[in-house]
Amino acid sequence: MKWPAHGANPQYLFDALQIPMPDKRIDFSANINPLGPPPILKENWHQLFDHISDYPDPNGNRLKRMLARREGMEESQILIGNGGAEIISLIGRMLAGKRIVIVQPAFSEYEEACRINGCTIDYHQLKPDSWEWQEGIASKLKNADALFFCNPSNPTGVFYPKTRVLELIKACAENDCLMIVDEAFYDFLIDYDPIVPYINKYPNLLIIRSMTKMFAIPGLRLGYIMATPSVIEKLSVFQPHWSMNALALKAGEWCLESESHINETRGMIQQERERLFIFYQEMGFQFSPSQINFYLLKDPAIKEQLPLFQFLIKRGVIPRHTMNFPGLNGEWLRFAIKGSKDNSQLMEAIEEWRSSHL
Amino acid sequence: MKWPAHGANPQYLFDALQIPMPDKRIDFSANINPLGPPPILKENWHQLFDHISDYPDPNGNRLKRMLARREGMEESQILIGNGGAEIISLIGRMLAGKRIVIVQPAFSEYEEACRINGCTIDYHQLKPDSWEWQEGIASKLKNADALFFCNPSNPTGVFYPKTRVLELIKACAENDCLMIVDEAFYDFLIDYDPIVPYINKYPNLLIIRSMTKMFAIPGLRLGYIMATPSVIEKLSVFQPHWSMNALALKAGEWCLESESHINETRGMIQQERERLFIFYQEMGFQFSPSQINFYLLKDPAIKEQLPLFQFLIKRGVIPRHTMNFPGLNGEWLRFAIKGSKDNSQLMEAIEEWRSSHL
Repeated sequence: MKWPAHGANPQYLFDALQIPMPDKRIDFSANINPLGPPPILKENWHQLFDHISDYPDPNGNRLKRMLARREGMEESQILIGNGGAEIISLIGRMLAGKRIVIVQPAFSEYEEACRINGCTIDYHQLKPDSWEWQEGIASKLKNADALFFCNPSNPTGVFYPKTRVLELIKACAENDCLMIVDEAFYDFLIDYDPIVPYINKYPNLLIIRSMTKMFAIPGLRLGYIMATPSVIEKLSVFQPHWSMNALALKAGEWCLESESHINETRGMIQQERERLFIFYQEMGFQFSPSQINFYLLKDPAIKEQLPLFQFLIKRGVIPRHTMNFPGLNGEWLRFAIKGSKDNSQLMEAIEEWRSSHL
Repeated sequence: MKWPAHGANPQYLFDALQIPMPDKRIDFSANINPLGPPPILKENWHQLFDHISDYPDPNGNRLKRMLARREGMEESQILIGNGGAEIISLIGRMLAGKRIVIVQPAFSEYEEACRINGCTIDYHQLKPDSWEWQEGIASKLKNADALFFCNPSNPTGVFYPKTRVLELIKACAENDCLMIVDEAFYDFLIDYDPIVPYINKYPNLLIIRSMTKMFAIPGLRLGYIMATPSVIEKLSVFQPHWSMNALALKAGEWCLESESHINETRGMIQQERERLFIFYQEMGFQFSPSQINFYLLKDPAIKEQLPLFQFLIKRGVIPRHTMNFPGLNGEWLRFAIKGSKDNSQLMEAIEEWRSSHL
């Protein structure tokens, strides 16, 4: 069988496994804010109807201005995209034929975008359990044009602090290598010290952001990249005209005004994460030391986690498989942190598994 | 000054011309259905809110099934895109480095998409006034890998009937040349005899469709392409994941169920077009023999139409300049056909121009 490349859209998973999709299900495979979109989106939803009949601003200038102000950057250092996936696709196009290193395990779109553009792809594998990178990375950069690094990491949820990331940025700069940091989940961190200002010092630094996770708008598509203006210009050449839809652009403005929603989300996720991790420790399960809204999990009693995966999805509890994460190969499962009730149902299912598979 | 590459988003035009944008204005530069979106979209708008927090189906399978049924094609012959502009961008990527012929004047995105992918670009110019293609086109195909042809034509609105288009498709096939027919405005035609079934006979035929014009949803972004499955597969490789947003996919389904809205639009546009053309004849203006919802116009008393253009936009009547349409070079203006009241205001402004510029 062919495993789906991503979480979400569970129909594809059940089709692949040839298992009927249960009516009642909780999708832990998509890492979306369980509190949903900021309330202002629902309150003003009717206003958005008027935006569907106008062409969107092809540059999203109003939203770009807000982002620039928020991040302390120039507008020329920002490109808005039709979701983080489009941004990654544009980077792949820019890097056509180049030599790429991907810190793995990581979001599979980096490799996909580079592969279809004829790049040579090398991996640097994080050590499972500690999820730290190893000495070898420096020598790999000697022959690389770009390094992809996800921080906080998808799929582990592990966050690498600024001092460590700066080591990598410098090592890349010394080797004339772009460093692409995907910060799609940075806004779930409790204390985050931004690396954005270093773009002014290191023109090899590119930072990808997503607005679909924290603001729970994956259906709308919205992301952006920050980098030195010459990189932004190169990327924008490859972007189709009117790539962001008008609703995403307007909703994006409202999202940026929803600071209290972000804070509430962070607090709630932290509380649930602590509750889940205490439970897993008691159960003797292993998990990645995530600081955000998802984590890796395994039952150390079995190597490949497929039996646990199947046990759960038959109960409508849907984890993300890790078959297509190099270095994980199905030996872990990934779970989003959802609302309290959903997380409790997951814990019940895990208890049931433990009692029947001791 | 740098003229904006497209109509719509009039702020860019006024900024370029350094003229303050009037509060009251009618935008004739975007060719959108003046009746607006099908009523079902407004009626069901609140339902769409629930779609923003789910990842869109990356393949848009439900909508694809509906399109396949409607067009009598296989799903494997269809790719949905984030607006026609994304489809054109994907075609440009597929044609990287190839030799392209564009039947001009035409939508500028064909050239743009090919240019950034390193294609060699040649034009075949339509003869102004008749807007017919000339004998020379056959010899150009000998050295071409792909021909772009817009039917009905943007910017003239002229429609070329099936027998004539089939001549071109065959000539392309004999020369091992792809023929890309952009039918973005086909659904404004009163009687349309589709060329879609010929995809089964001519695997070199690609047909682009837009759903944003007839259904007045340019803010949502939605288009598709029909072609032989191997072409669809090649194009889809270059498409970013989750490229179509969830609202566009759902709205697209509703649009396809809105046959009466299409019919009402066609009738209203035809009536207004006849009224406008009678008026222009009386005024001694020249216009392209459009069969759809926009047309080219010129005052034959002046060669370059810039003075007329400036006269109109100062009155808040905004035409589309033709500076970046090869072969037109500002010697025409393009106008969308809008609602009766708006068209009357345009006619008043033209009368005013005529009386002050005899």
